Amino acid sequence: MTTIDTKPGNNAPAAPPRKLLGHLMELLEKRLHEFFRAERERRSKAYSQAADLVGSVADLVGAGGKRVRPAFCLSGYLAAGGDPEDHRVLRAAVALELLHAAALIHDDIMDAATRRRGVPTVHERHSATHRLCGWRGEDRRYGEGVAVLAGDLALVYADQFMAAAPPLVDALWAELRTELIVGQFVDVHVAAAAEFPVDPQLARWIAVTKSGRYTIHRPLELGAAIAGRPDLSDAFEAYGSAIGEAFQLRDDLIDAFGDGQVSGKPDGLDLAQHKMTLLLGAAMQRDLGIRDLVRAGDAGAGRLRSRLRETGVRVDIERHIDQLVDDGCRAIAQAPLAAGWREELIEMARLVAYRDR
Amino acid sequence: MTTIDTKPGNNAPAAPPRKLLGHLMELLEKRLHEFFRAERERRSKAYSQAADLVGSVADLVGAGGKRVRPAFCLSGYLAAGGDPEDHRVLRAAVALELLHAAALIHDDIMDAATRRRGVPTVHERHSATHRLCGWRGEDRRYGEGVAVLAGDLALVYADQFMAAAPPLVDALWAELRTELIVGQFVDVHVAAAAEFPVDPQLARWIAVTKSGRYTIHRPLELGAAIAGRPDLSDAFEAYGSAIGEAFQLRDDLIDAFGDGQVSGKPDGLDLAQHKMTLLLGAAMQRDLGIRDLVRAGDAGAGRLRSRLRETGVRVDIERHIDQLVDDGCRAIAQAPLAAGWREELIEMARLVAYRDR
Repeated sequence: MTTIDTKPGNNAPAAPPRKLLGHLMELLEKRLHEFFRAERERRSKAYSQAADLVGSVADLVGAGGKRVRPAFCLSGYLAAGGDPEDHRVLRAAVALELLHAAALIHDDIMDAATRRRGVPTVHERHSATHRLCGWRGEDRRYGEGVAVLAGDLALVYADQFMAAAPPLVDALWAELRTELIVGQFVDVHVAAAAEFPVDPQLARWIAVTKSGRYTIHRPLELGAAIAGRPDLSDAFEAYGSAIGEAFQLRDDLIDAFGDGQVSGKPDGLDLAQHKMTLLLGAAMQRDLGIRDLVRAGDAGAGRLRSRLRETGVRVDIERHIDQLVDDGCRAIAQAPLAAGWREELIEMARLVAYRDR
Repeated sequence: MTTIDTKPGNNAPAAPPRKLLGHLMELLEKRLHEFFRAERERRSKAYSQAADLVGSVADLVGAGGKRVRPAFCLSGYLAAGGDPEDHRVLRAAVALELLHAAALIHDDIMDAATRRRGVPTVHERHSATHRLCGWRGEDRRYGEGVAVLAGDLALVYADQFMAAAPPLVDALWAELRTELIVGQFVDVHVAAAAEFPVDPQLARWIAVTKSGRYTIHRPLELGAAIAGRPDLSDAFEAYGSAIGEAFQLRDDLIDAFGDGQVSGKPDGLDLAQHKMTLLLGAAMQRDLGIRDLVRAGDAGAGRLRSRLRETGVRVDIERHIDQLVDDGCRAIAQAPLAAGWREELIEMARLVAYRDR
């Protein structure tokens, strides 16, 4: 590995943000890989099949993913002037990725999703094994049960990595996880009960709570807290909220119009499951026809999707994303960040807001 | 509340173990109650329905339960000479009870159990609401999804309470949780795949891993660690392993022969679900007829139960429990514990080994 000049002398310039971040992201992958290798070995010593459960988590994490949360955590830390040689922040970044794995595994059960990151979801894989081997009981119950445990394990692993963080971080970490779970509950509840099917404010609340905060705002805040800079939390909240909303709107657009081959998951799942997405919330405010389709309930994802396509809503949402990116970038324009980090965070905002998967 | 003399002067005798423990157990109930009250209120401020999810965890915890794990954690702490005025140990005890709630909620999904502690299980309750209200989608998926999230929330709450524990405790806490999850996986896996349906060693491994350790041995060890007495871990391991096995055997006996009105859960669930319990493992070693019935698979729990009743296995198991209680008590006979704690732990061993629910 190339050594990076992280502690410059008096005249040497600091390593550029991109290079520092890239270096830590490489270490993150190594940590994840090494952790799962050791853990698989350790658990299989006690009982050989136990490695299968560890493997279900490891495979999902290893199958890719954008690593958005670790990247923002490490960026928050470095932008706050945290020492790049002090690798304690890496443990927090690993924890965030493992928490994300837990959330995906459990969410996929609730959504009955079959694919994730281009491979079968954890419950789907174990249900398939059950069917193939002709085991006792119901294949669905078995697969979903194993996935519940795999998600639990990922949650515990995440926590294990965060345990060494400074006390200041404990409350943030607890809040981040509780928000995520409560947000997901409200999402599932509203999709089923549909008590407020035409409430864009609720759509916004769900998106901010279950996804926006935990994707960008809280990871940045965690990173800054580990660097001992809680003073940055206002700037990071403003940036994170705007870019988090842009991230989520893009997610919704990818679900509604995207290419499953690129995203690694089926298209139109949210629409088919009556999820009150940010996209729908925004679309309903702009187009009464969409409001009626959503109200009608089981109109089907197909009709909703064509209506979203036909009307100008999509272009409108793209414009709203542009606005959010502008807002977010403006929010950190005056923040006291380490050299080069304003520009780097602006670039990252664009990357997440205009991605295709 | 009565004030207890926990810091005696030179001549005053220390409060007896039972009184000290009872006092801390009362505080534990108050902490749990107060935590859920505040958390319900806090989450419902953001979105009123969110309190429902918190309530699902709170209701289960409030519905009773034996509080075995907190009791052993607090006892480990006090027996190790921990200061009864230092309430940090209470946070660990609360964490253990919340972890247990998480495990119950998730296990009940996997077992498709309908009742727990005399009330409907979390998934059952939410599925029923879904049916009653005629909501969209499948009632089972909704109820189980909500229960997955309720269990996740309990896991996060548990961790939040343990976060303030000394670093020495972190590794123990991680191991306790991982063992619990991996043990449950192997249990579910073996019940379905039945690759080794007649392996008493495996039955023992599962019982020790998923239940024995986390019920008595690890809570005692945690308490001692918080008191700064890791030197007690050998004695507590020997005591905890024996009494943990007795606890689990009693659990199996209650499942197989108990009264659901007393235990608060349906009888015979383990047998019906082909669980490789300690009871079955021990019974198979003593009675070849039972071995054949287990091998036959779906021949029915009914026949297995009568066979267990007819043969002398039950009496045999009771004798084995006696032996385990003896072993456990002998293991702490020479341990350097605070005054009166040997006797108290012996009494607790009897309480868990000879309980009726």
